[in-house]
Amino acid sequence: MAQQARAVVTRAAIIRGAAAVFQQHGYGSTSLADVCAEAGVTKGALYFHFDSKEALARAIIEAQHESSSAIGRDLLEAHMRGIDAMIVMSLEIADQLHNNPVVSAGVRLTIEAANFDSPVDAPYLDWMKAAEEFLRRGQAEGDITDTVEVCTAAHFIISAFTGVQVVSDVLTRREDIQQRLVEMWGMLLPGLAPADRLADLLALPERIRASRHGTSGG
Amino acid sequence: MAQQARAVVTRAAIIRGAAAVFQQHGYGSTSLADVCAEAGVTKGALYFHFDSKEALARAIIEAQHESSSAIGRDLLEAHMRGIDAMIVMSLEIADQLHNNPVVSAGVRLTIEAANFDSPVDAPYLDWMKAAEEFLRRGQAEGDITDTVEVCTAAHFIISAFTGVQVVSDVLTRREDIQQRLVEMWGMLLPGLAPADRLADLLALPERIRASRHGTSGG
Repeated sequence: MAQQARAVVTRAAIIRGAAAVFQQHGYGSTSLADVCAEAGVTKGALYFHFDSKEALARAIIEAQHESSSAIGRDLLEAHMRGIDAMIVMSLEIADQLHNNPVVSAGVRLTIEAANFDSPVDAPYLDWMKAAEEFLRRGQAEGDITDTVEVCTAAHFIISAFTGVQVVSDVLTRREDIQQRLVEMWGMLLPGLAPADRLADLLALPERIRASRHGTSGG
Repeated sequence: MAQQARAVVTRAAIIRGAAAVFQQHGYGSTSLADVCAEAGVTKGALYFHFDSKEALARAIIEAQHESSSAIGRDLLEAHMRGIDAMIVMSLEIADQLHNNPVVSAGVRLTIEAANFDSPVDAPYLDWMKAAEEFLRRGQAEGDITDTVEVCTAAHFIISAFTGVQVVSDVLTRREDIQQRLVEMWGMLLPGLAPADRLADLLALPERIRASRHGTSGG
């Protein structure tokens, strides 16, 4: 049991160390020796848990995916309007991207992973499914126009979110990501909301950001 | 003179070969030996033109940037409405991404280049400047609402375009990129166009795509 607990701790240390090295050097330029040095483990310990660099990258992508899926799940279960939940989800994932090294390494690897043997599309598809659910709720609640095609809109919202975080990473190392997401919602809401709800909803992204900023300091 | 011409040919062959290898293996996993093999040149010839892998990657990013800037320049000089020019630019760059290996490798490298010593932000900033110019023309022509903040809107449009092509690459190897861009414009135009122009403008992206498809087969 103690041994099993130790294995869990070691595995987590390897994932954290690998995330830091991948984030700094990129996937291809990272060697397993770098990961061992960063995580403070032996090569034997590393190979006990992961049999290749790709396995390690996939574990990071899974850990990132797990923590962003948890956000979606919690929000789906929370008693929150669909449109609020969708905006909160985007700001929450952005916070993780900016502050959690495993999440930012996971997202970077997801993009670099176009090189992997099988593509890594689960995070995008899951985010799209959550966004579809929020949009359908929004339609039932009168915040989203009935004529909006939910699948198309969800696909674009997740694509736009992906681009906002990529460009924010390149231009500001994600310092401006929250502000850029507020701007994103300002551009998207006119195409999503009925005319009589639009003025109210346009104030929402900044209000949600400010309230999160007040409580979380991020 | 003949020697100089040969050097130009060799340099172009190296860039094409490197683009193919970077695209297949990613930046970090590519070795200069792979590039020599793909381009059919000796290591000496490669080092005569490029003194490091990063120099080679930067040359590809520049070549990509040059061809996408040329699109923006040509469109700025064409007698075309701002909104038409902006939509054509997005579809044209998407075509290049799908069909020109140096352009797709350049864009992939731009994203991986968050790892380079100095960040590679010129393509994003140039695209944003072109989009700003098109939006201002659109305002003068009555297709874009006067209250649209041009810099913010241009920043988001380029970010959204970036995300659409990344997600299209991960999910479909860019097979669906043209369709996804038409959908993008459908989502963005309600936030950009005045009410009395919107119905007309919403038909524009599909019309432009269809006419391009008719003439270019792409």
